[in-house]
Amino acid sequence: MTQRFNFSDHSHRRYNPLTDSWILCSPHRAKRPWQGAQESEKKGDSVSYDPNCYLCPGNLRAAGSRNLNYTQTFVFQNDYAAVKIDQPDYRSEEETIEGTEIGLLKKRLFKARGVRGNCFVICFSPKHNVTLPLMNLTELETVVQTWKDLYLKLQGNGKNGTVKYRYLQLFENKGAAMGCSNPHPHCQAWCLDTLPSLVERELTNMTNYRRKYGSHLLDDYVKLELNEKERVVLDNDSFTVVVPYWALWPFEVLLISKEHLHSLEDFNEKHKADLASILKKLTIKYDNLFNCSFPYSMGIHQAPLYGTTEERANSWFHMHFYPPLLRSAYIKKFCVGFELLGEPQRDLTSEQAAARLQALDGEHHYSESA
Amino acid sequence: MTQRFNFSDHSHRRYNPLTDSWILCSPHRAKRPWQGAQESEKKGDSVSYDPNCYLCPGNLRAAGSRNLNYTQTFVFQNDYAAVKIDQPDYRSEEETIEGTEIGLLKKRLFKARGVRGNCFVICFSPKHNVTLPLMNLTELETVVQTWKDLYLKLQGNGKNGTVKYRYLQLFENKGAAMGCSNPHPHCQAWCLDTLPSLVERELTNMTNYRRKYGSHLLDDYVKLELNEKERVVLDNDSFTVVVPYWALWPFEVLLISKEHLHSLEDFNEKHKADLASILKKLTIKYDNLFNCSFPYSMGIHQAPLYGTTEERANSWFHMHFYPPLLRSAYIKKFCVGFELLGEPQRDLTSEQAAARLQALDGEHHYSESA
Ligand SMILES: O=P(O)(O)O[C@H]1O[C@H](CO)[C@@H](O)[C@H](O)[C@H]1O
Ligand SMILES: O=P(O)(O)O[C@H]1O[C@H](CO)[C@@H](O)[C@H](O)[C@H]1O
Repeated sequence: MTQRFNFSDHSHRRYNPLTDSWILCSPHRAKRPWQGAQESEKKGDSVSYDPNCYLCPGNLRAAGSRNLNYTQTFVFQNDYAAVKIDQPDYRSEEETIEGTEIGLLKKRLFKARGVRGNCFVICFSPKHNVTLPLMNLTELETVVQTWKDLYLKLQGNGKNGTVKYRYLQLFENKGAAMGCSNPHPHCQAWCLDTLPSLVERELTNMTNYRRKYGSHLLDDYVKLELNEKERVVLDNDSFTVVVPYWALWPFEVLLISKEHLHSLEDFNEKHKADLASILKKLTIKYDNLFNCSFPYSMGIHQAPLYGTTEERANSWFHMHFYPPLLRSAYIKKFCVGFELLGEPQRDLTSEQAAARLQALDGEHHYSESA
Repeated sequence: MTQRFNFSDHSHRRYNPLTDSWILCSPHRAKRPWQGAQESEKKGDSVSYDPNCYLCPGNLRAAGSRNLNYTQTFVFQNDYAAVKIDQPDYRSEEETIEGTEIGLLKKRLFKARGVRGNCFVICFSPKHNVTLPLMNLTELETVVQTWKDLYLKLQGNGKNGTVKYRYLQLFENKGAAMGCSNPHPHCQAWCLDTLPSLVERELTNMTNYRRKYGSHLLDDYVKLELNEKERVVLDNDSFTVVVPYWALWPFEVLLISKEHLHSLEDFNEKHKADLASILKKLTIKYDNLFNCSFPYSMGIHQAPLYGTTEERANSWFHMHFYPPLLRSAYIKKFCVGFELLGEPQRDLTSEQAAARLQALDGEHHYSESA
């Protein structure tokens, strides 16, 4: 057998240096027929104000507060926050346990810590029926500014007995397939008094890379991808969007700052405009891929709100987009059995996905039918 | 504030020693109202033979082969296997890359390996309309025997130029919510010439634990849980089922052998009968929890098909069950935004979930309505 190895046909694993883990890639597998679950079509809402929506301006929320009559973005505390400010500390290591064998095992195997924090909801727009790709650049810049303002505000916490937050996780769950319970355009902001584990893992790997090679992992990676071009979906002065070499989700992308922006704190007017513009272009491509309002979870990874100088130096602003759809608006990728028990697995290569996204043009499919 | 820390009300993180990672637990969060996606009801099929099912005995499969007229279990090679036997080797480390900067970065950041393997489907029963909880103990013992036979058979591979498989991952995706595309009762078996990453991670952590404490992590853990009782759902001579202290999925359980069974190879008749019996009891409880055919992904973790003596010694037979449902047959837990970008998060404690499962009795809800 003197066949050459063919990445678009032969199974292989790729290494993700950000998370120090492997992905199994089965490129020939997209051919299998699908008889399983299908997503139901979710047409965008047609009304710009919905009296029953708890995120629309002026409306009453489930827990009783009323939204402001906001006209741009609107930030409020999540009524059902996953973390709370007001609770006592707890560290299992500090529990005194009698010197029995069971006490010893308990100490080893039942490790827990209290977590304090806060959760906010950020409405992108007062309009119920828009999404990021349908908003104009000025509106999108306001969204970026709102993220930056929140970051700066939370950085100031920790005085006068307030909780000192270590990390701000900004993320958007878009679409019912991604557990979003309200189509009104919004994202969430959870801040914790600890580094979330996936953020910590990336930071550890970026730190190790920099100690080993002297350069920054994501800086090197952007250089390499811009040279290769194959996986680059979008690029402007400040940001590059690629389907990462080690992508798990079918049309996953990584948006990376080209200069060393540690966090939203470093954003100037130009960065803000460039992020707004590339986010619009990316989400238009997504919607055009399967002619639907494309579901995804996306989020920002950046420097902790406070930390060591080295932690800040090793942080590099980037955003992950994890969209579940695989073949159409109705057929998604399931990360189940083998993926949960063995190894994350994907059915087409990153290069095949990038080619599909590259080929899509810049007008939103709504405008064609309009 | 001299409040005591309350695990059923205050947010906390718990440590998973098998994967060396943390889970965020927000026990008060189960109260939030749900307006998002709902699963559609999936009633069990009523016919025991479906002429259009590609898994029923005697039927034609999509890729053209015909199933045997099997009467117990039936094993065949997956027509759309994620890994293949016949492909060349590849290791990115062995590629020669010219001594340019880009060549260097490529070597660092584009790490890939060819993976060879095989995928099988195992039908649990010729009957189209049964599931594990609806099968009798003799039938379930045959399923366990079929798993063992496959393990032993694949262990023999690697002679006469056949691929030497390192690991056999047995898993079942049950229900449309878990990406299962055919309700005919079946599981899958993927074998690879490498250790899947999640299996490798567990083995590393069990190895470190044993080097550090001299005892086996899962042996200690079973002892501790049987002493505490709080999280124990089922227990017999050979196996214990617990909602692990560090569970992520709402009703996740871990099934652990009580003596040191390294793999299915070690199973005697008693182990086989005990596994069959505890699997039936567990899956009946699952179906009774929300009065539905309960979806999950489950799978077996055990010793590699071949490996070092230490790898075998550190392996301990166990099964994970990852069910997605949270509050009813229709409302599942979404592992999305914060979970994908920050840290896995759950909405009730392991103890609360265990109490629910403990309280359910032993008769399948079908029998009540019959
Ligand atoms: O081979 P099947 O059953 O069609 O596929 C199912 O299980 C696989 C292994 O967990 C997943 O990769 C697929 O997404 C899922 O649909
Ligand atoms: O707070 P929401 O939007 O209702 O909840 C959504 O996002 C959360 C954070 O990713 C998830 O834990 C929930 O499962 C999901 O439904």
